[in-house]
Amino acid sequence: MFLCGEIHYFRVPRQLWRDRLLKLKRAGANCVSTYIPWNWHQPREDLVLFRDGVEVDHYVADYYSRDLEGFLELAKSLGLKVVARPGPYICAEWDGGGHPGWIYTKTMRLRSRDPTYMQHAKRWYEEVAKVLKPYVDSGAIVAVQVENEYFWGNEPYINELAKLVKELLNPPILFTNENPYSTQVPNAIDEYPSPWSLEGFDRKVESYMLQQRSLFKMIAELMGGWFTSMWHGRHPTDRLSIPSEWTEMLLKTAIARGLNNVNIYMFHGGTNPGYYTAKYITTSYDYEAAIREWGELSKRFYGLKRVYYFMNSLREVLESSEPSSRDFQIASSCSDIVARKGPRGSVVLLRNTTDWMCYQRIYYNGHSIPSRGVLRVPPKYAKMLLVDHPIGDADVKLVYTTGEVLLKAKIGDRCVLVVYGDRGETTETLLISTSPFEKVEYHGDVEVESSGLELLVTATHGDGDSIVYTETSTGSRVLLIYTNRWRAERTWLLEDLLLVSNIYFVGDVKVESDRLILELELDDESCGRVLLVSRPGFVGKVLVNGVDTSFVELLGGVYEFHIPLEYCVEGGRRARLVNVVELVEDPIIHDFRRVSPGTHLEAMGFYDNGLYVYRILFDLDRRDLEELKDKTIAVVGFSDYALISLNGVFIGSGYHIVESSTNNALREGVNELLLIVESTGHPNDGLLYVPNGVYGGVYLGRVGLVDLSTWRRVDYKLPIGPRFDYAEFISNPQIDLQLLERAAEISSVKTPLSSPGLYLTELLVEDERVHYVLDPGEPFYNNYYYRALLFVNDEYVGPLIGPTDITRYLKRGVNKVALFIDWGVLAPKLRIYERRVDGAWFVQEKTYGIINKWYKSAPTYMRSVSLPVHLGGYAGRAVWVRALVNYEREPSPLNPVKMRLGFHGLRALVYVNGHLIGRVSEDSPTNELYIPEPAIKRGLNEITLLVLPTSGNAMINELVLEEYYVHRKVELTLVSSSR
Amino acid sequence: MFLCGEIHYFRVPRQLWRDRLLKLKRAGANCVSTYIPWNWHQPREDLVLFRDGVEVDHYVADYYSRDLEGFLELAKSLGLKVVARPGPYICAEWDGGGHPGWIYTKTMRLRSRDPTYMQHAKRWYEEVAKVLKPYVDSGAIVAVQVENEYFWGNEPYINELAKLVKELLNPPILFTNENPYSTQVPNAIDEYPSPWSLEGFDRKVESYMLQQRSLFKMIAELMGGWFTSMWHGRHPTDRLSIPSEWTEMLLKTAIARGLNNVNIYMFHGGTNPGYYTAKYITTSYDYEAAIREWGELSKRFYGLKRVYYFMNSLREVLESSEPSSRDFQIASSCSDIVARKGPRGSVVLLRNTTDWMCYQRIYYNGHSIPSRGVLRVPPKYAKMLLVDHPIGDADVKLVYTTGEVLLKAKIGDRCVLVVYGDRGETTETLLISTSPFEKVEYHGDVEVESSGLELLVTATHGDGDSIVYTETSTGSRVLLIYTNRWRAERTWLLEDLLLVSNIYFVGDVKVESDRLILELELDDESCGRVLLVSRPGFVGKVLVNGVDTSFVELLGGVYEFHIPLEYCVEGGRRARLVNVVELVEDPIIHDFRRVSPGTHLEAMGFYDNGLYVYRILFDLDRRDLEELKDKTIAVVGFSDYALISLNGVFIGSGYHIVESSTNNALREGVNELLLIVESTGHPNDGLLYVPNGVYGGVYLGRVGLVDLSTWRRVDYKLPIGPRFDYAEFISNPQIDLQLLERAAEISSVKTPLSSPGLYLTELLVEDERVHYVLDPGEPFYNNYYYRALLFVNDEYVGPLIGPTDITRYLKRGVNKVALFIDWGVLAPKLRIYERRVDGAWFVQEKTYGIINKWYKSAPTYMRSVSLPVHLGGYAGRAVWVRALVNYEREPSPLNPVKMRLGFHGLRALVYVNGHLIGRVSEDSPTNELYIPEPAIKRGLNEITLLVLPTSGNAMINELVLEEYYVHRKVELTLVSSSR
Repeated sequence: MFLCGEIHYFRVPRQLWRDRLLKLKRAGANCVSTYIPWNWHQPREDLVLFRDGVEVDHYVADYYSRDLEGFLELAKSLGLKVVARPGPYICAEWDGGGHPGWIYTKTMRLRSRDPTYMQHAKRWYEEVAKVLKPYVDSGAIVAVQVENEYFWGNEPYINELAKLVKELLNPPILFTNENPYSTQVPNAIDEYPSPWSLEGFDRKVESYMLQQRSLFKMIAELMGGWFTSMWHGRHPTDRLSIPSEWTEMLLKTAIARGLNNVNIYMFHGGTNPGYYTAKYITTSYDYEAAIREWGELSKRFYGLKRVYYFMNSLREVLESSEPSSRDFQIASSCSDIVARKGPRGSVVLLRNTTDWMCYQRIYYNGHSIPSRGVLRVPPKYAKMLLVDHPIGDADVKLVYTTGEVLLKAKIGDRCVLVVYGDRGETTETLLISTSPFEKVEYHGDVEVESSGLELLVTATHGDGDSIVYTETSTGSRVLLIYTNRWRAERTWLLEDLLLVSNIYFVGDVKVESDRLILELELDDESCGRVLLVSRPGFVGKVLVNGVDTSFVELLGGVYEFHIPLEYCVEGGRRARLVNVVELVEDPIIHDFRRVSPGTHLEAMGFYDNGLYVYRILFDLDRRDLEELKDKTIAVVGFSDYALISLNGVFIGSGYHIVESSTNNALREGVNELLLIVESTGHPNDGLLYVPNGVYGGVYLGRVGLVDLSTWRRVDYKLPIGPRFDYAEFISNPQIDLQLLERAAEISSVKTPLSSPGLYLTELLVEDERVHYVLDPGEPFYNNYYYRALLFVNDEYVGPLIGPTDITRYLKRGVNKVALFIDWGVLAPKLRIYERRVDGAWFVQEKTYGIINKWYKSAPTYMRSVSLPVHLGGYAGRAVWVRALVNYEREPSPLNPVKMRLGFHGLRALVYVNGHLIGRVSEDSPTNELYIPEPAIKRGLNEITLLVLPTSGNAMINELVLEEYYVHRKVELTLVSSSR
Repeated sequence: MFLCGEIHYFRVPRQLWRDRLLKLKRAGANCVSTYIPWNWHQPREDLVLFRDGVEVDHYVADYYSRDLEGFLELAKSLGLKVVARPGPYICAEWDGGGHPGWIYTKTMRLRSRDPTYMQHAKRWYEEVAKVLKPYVDSGAIVAVQVENEYFWGNEPYINELAKLVKELLNPPILFTNENPYSTQVPNAIDEYPSPWSLEGFDRKVESYMLQQRSLFKMIAELMGGWFTSMWHGRHPTDRLSIPSEWTEMLLKTAIARGLNNVNIYMFHGGTNPGYYTAKYITTSYDYEAAIREWGELSKRFYGLKRVYYFMNSLREVLESSEPSSRDFQIASSCSDIVARKGPRGSVVLLRNTTDWMCYQRIYYNGHSIPSRGVLRVPPKYAKMLLVDHPIGDADVKLVYTTGEVLLKAKIGDRCVLVVYGDRGETTETLLISTSPFEKVEYHGDVEVESSGLELLVTATHGDGDSIVYTETSTGSRVLLIYTNRWRAERTWLLEDLLLVSNIYFVGDVKVESDRLILELELDDESCGRVLLVSRPGFVGKVLVNGVDTSFVELLGGVYEFHIPLEYCVEGGRRARLVNVVELVEDPIIHDFRRVSPGTHLEAMGFYDNGLYVYRILFDLDRRDLEELKDKTIAVVGFSDYALISLNGVFIGSGYHIVESSTNNALREGVNELLLIVESTGHPNDGLLYVPNGVYGGVYLGRVGLVDLSTWRRVDYKLPIGPRFDYAEFISNPQIDLQLLERAAEISSVKTPLSSPGLYLTELLVEDERVHYVLDPGEPFYNNYYYRALLFVNDEYVGPLIGPTDITRYLKRGVNKVALFIDWGVLAPKLRIYERRVDGAWFVQEKTYGIINKWYKSAPTYMRSVSLPVHLGGYAGRAVWVRALVNYEREPSPLNPVKMRLGFHGLRALVYVNGHLIGRVSEDSPTNELYIPEPAIKRGLNEITLLVLPTSGNAMINELVLEEYYVHRKVELTLVSSSR
């Protein structure tokens, strides 16, 4: 049974790996799942890196690590199994979905059995297998996934990858993901349904369970949040906030439907290093995950922890039970029911998707659950009940409890069951036994009715915990603990030690001679009562930070003590602001290289994302200038963002296209166009390779802008299936346009075009001397994926990746344009230009300042200015801004720090002490960046920004370091009584 | 056009009225709506109170005010109109829905034309009218509502109330609410739909608009959050968190459907004083409202503010337009469309209820909106567009903007339009004019294409604002300001002064000779750029807290300056904890009064909610004791909570029923039963009067507990309609049970019974000497309303209000039990007892400690103990706990304070410096209480708790005062340049 959480070692500073993995483990997970990105480990064809200390680019902070072995070793040492997902394609909102930049120069048939692709994929598998092999052999790696979300079939491709992995690693479990056509390789599924609609999820899980029958089954990704990208407003994710109750309901539904293997994606999202973000994805990959980007345990963490605790300790029930749709009946329709039943007990799930409290009763086997009252299912909550489960020495059976079971554990000679409910909720628990309950003791807000072979407990779940202890005549010992949901979430089971508490987190546990030392992390609600269960006589002394604390032994082995309130008062969260910064302009020019005009960067050997500078020189004589009817200049077709100056005058900035008046800067003779292009990453789709840099051209004079708003739509679908090869289709789509055009079901539609299908329109060309660029429109780019194929006059132009010059496909008169849209939203426009200028093109990777590492040590000749500082004068160029800020505390996950940057009209790279902590721009949902602890230090910190002012009103008005919170670390020492 | 927010003066300390009303006004509201609770102003039949200084009970802090006139005067002085809702029934989650306790002794036919009820209601109307009349006459009160949510008809009753109000006040508008049968009195509606389903809401508004045609139309209550009650878990409301985007979508939908009068319920919820909470409602009435309980402006505030700003300044469009379902077409189905159209322009709403960005295009009048690109509708958002609206001096028309219009204002000789979008969003605005655009200036991230009579602006909405200024040849002056959603929310329009800013709140504005002084409240994001628009030359100097600040005049009258960052750093939120408390037991006994057994308190002249002490003496001789087969004692049928001791031994505690072993405390001779009963309030339903105190009896020996789980259901419905009188129905239901029993559509159902209908079952009585109590079960009580009528053997027992002794209706053999359920969930049980004991009953209102005001000055003989303190030894009795805490700051809404109380196994009244700030118990969703500023003071504060330990493990382990936040107040002074 895999209870996994996805954590990406490449998105977490190495120094924090242990903190995050320990948190995952303490949530009750037994496994960590991680992608292994090909491009992270093979950034150049000839450079395979599974170690640190090699500087690959200027953007990735050195605390991000490629030491996969170190990560595996750490997981192993913590007792976490590993699910390894080495691609070759991984999606993951990661640059190119893991594809290295250089692969594009080799082949365009990605994610296919194309021999070139397979040759490199095989090499990658071989390299990564060297690291993975020992861990597969030792059992640390329990499963390996090949490919990812190849929805369309191509079984031979999946099989070939699987065959390679089998040969190289022979893992116990090998699977692929979201490929319903895979018959030889087990298929796992991913689920991200919108709250609060369960229908689609239910249907999918049900059919999945049928489809995979006796095969390995897993939810490889269950919605643990969502990512953020540009332009989506100030929200925690692109889909607003994802309620933690929703993740919990999905997980419980999966369990109740018989799926025992799950992975929460993400369990901890982390941060995207440098330009490894996929297109438009933010630096933060917080994902609103269980463990937040800065290490905080969220409500989702504690919700998942409750369910994982249950799954862990009731594994035998889950593994021996089958879906049961008829055995359990409910009395009211305010919730529905999903159940599984088996010889070791049943799990019954009541799901209430309404806003109202649901009162329910279950009929089962002629009995009523509960027997006396009714059971409550809170609004938008799924209550998971345990029924008919043997406990103690098997002579006792839990018939039911209307509270939820957090865990069952054998501690000493007792079977301990922790049951929780809402604050103030009353629940009923019925135990029966084959031998009489001889001894019954209880404490707290419970009523116990014992009548020989039956024990009925009515418990009210308050802030205090209640306990019921019973022994049967044959010696079965059962301890029931009743607590509320909040305290259940802050209950920690550590081997044979159980703490029911308010404690935020229990970290490391050390054994030292006669004492057990627990490292506690306390927030401001962590203090107060702790109920400790262990073996009788286990505790002789309780020390909190070395200070003796009184305790009571309520029963043998059941202790109560308090964590003093002093440890939980407001920790004094602080903020430090910058008033004065230093400035220096980046000279930009370092070493230009002559290149062919309009050629993407990869084709010229530049593989990295990031900043590129183009210098384009072109001649205009007087006649040229006079002939131009329109003085617009347009740079069309680049990835992604560019700032453009002409003869030293700022022209404009934007994504994909900059079209602007030349502001009288165009001149006779040699003109110099300077472009700073920021390639923010490749789309994580992985099918289409969208190249970097300027793949289009430079035009003068706009003579037309035609909104292609009316299209005819033909309902053509991709011929997906086991034999369908998407890469092949993209290369040579073989769509019989003429046949389809005569199809009956043609309808007329208006842009935006969003549903998949074939779209047709006509274009009248009157002037053959001008240039026609088809621009797919803003929404196209704003999609994370896009797949649309372009045909002109029945000729295949190719997949659309941006504004495309289609002049050479056109003829005078009526032309046919066809678009096959598989995914994406298009609002195509036709841009018509007077002239195309080529001239002499030069390219330089990065700017002078980056190349000379000004982010590590800025030049001495900077000038000081006070905030706010206007930077509009540098528009179209680049400027370095430096500030010094004092931070008085030792950096630690106990007091994580963020930077808030108030600014507008610019994009910036933000460095702290030489480490790139992220990128900001006005498009991103937040102007805050987490500063990973390895980046910051006690004392003076150097903040360096490389600023690209994108408009004349560029400005920085705020720069603040601020703590998220300040927690306390406290040592809880339990001294044995026996010594 | 009423843009109202509901704020209850009786739930806000008088000293804070102005703060809250000013915040409402600054949100763009023009009106405050408030209930006026009858019982608040007529607590005794002979005591009508519209002034303060009279101590009515021991529970209500003296900063809660009955000075209705003072409130009206304040609203008037702020320019807010008032909607007055004086009942007589108000619901409002308020004790008895506003019905005074004493009314119950007069009649049971509440909310009807019952002569007694009408006589008292008339008196109430007359009294309240004296206060309201001058404000109706002066136009300050614009509308008066009679009754509330009388869903069932009874038109004569509504008409009679309306007639009274007309006679007494003759308000311009008079309406009732949620009564679809009212034909003579306009009906307003209330809407609280569950996110994110719009169907029901759409349908209701549509049919409402038809139904009311030319009548006054208003959403008297639109979901601005929800309340909290007991047992619902740790959530902000009983329905989890209500997204602010949902409130915004509802409001925009109402507008787009033609409803111009709206009231957000609650706009500021506040706090429930003392025991004026309705049953099971918490002290906090935060409601997750726009203005939080402690005065904080939430996301909902700013969202509503955006919409109210729009409504305010585009009133002419709203008031002159009609629903238009055909004029506007959309290209894609990812959002739907609702529109209204008129001569002054159209409002077009695009609603996206999915999790995904929607790209859309509107076709209108042969045009496309936008003309170039597409427009974006963010996930779970409704985008409201303004189309075809004349601006400037009417020669200019805004054809459309794909951004949202925040406001239109005439400032100086210019028409100013503020347009917002998401961070990074690009929008398109098209203006046309009948005279050429002669002058065009712009600044920021905009592109402007001007071609004679057309002006097309493409703006990117960043953190900096962009401006476009244009003048036509005929002198129309238009200023367009583009900003992002966040800054739009923090934009403040004050007469002819506009601030586009990050400022959290602008409070009072003073004019002093040559200067304008604005009181700003700043949070940690408030600093940075301010764009100020006024008349040209208006600003000569800008002072922040007296310090000269540099500014730039971008255009004439458009200024830019910065609020320095220093004012926005973390304010040092503090917490103060209590380590030592003092204790003293409450002697309880003060002055008992002999009463009849099992009679509710109101019948004996006790009207107040709160604590009552019962002393019941009963004799048992040896034979009595020996004859008892079961030693259980049960106190059955009380409101609401009781702690019970028998002969000094704690027996148990609970709601409605306490049934427990006598723990060997029963003895021969005189037995003394001591009950502390806490009546937490009457249900706010207002139809049924559920009395206080013990209305049931005391029983010995439980001989049976029968779960009445199987019923036959007949689909009988209330005969609601214009003539239906619910009170009459309750008194004499006239349901022909015998006929219905023979009905064909009888089905068998299991408890819980929840759908309305008639339910029948049989009861076999074998022993006539025992006592039968019908207990409706926990879910019944947990409903806010419940209406169920009980019949035994065709005889009407009455409405069910709790456990009911039905012995006298039963006969040996088979008995018929019938329940008509109109509202509520029932899981009936039959409790059978051996003996009923009467004895001598004594009652005392409150305890010795309360009567002697120990909450104001505790006795000197208390003993000191350290926290945590165990109080289990006092179970069943009462104990006072006192602590002193230092608070170093001046109390202010800038730094509101809460108390966190860690405890279990108890209920408590919490006083600060003699003021009851609230009640806590383990059932409530939170253990935090807001301390209103008038309750706390700088320096030493005295915290006093009256604790009722409800179990043997009662304990207090934490007592902390903690600031919610610390904001800064800053004075912004604009010195005129002309002097």
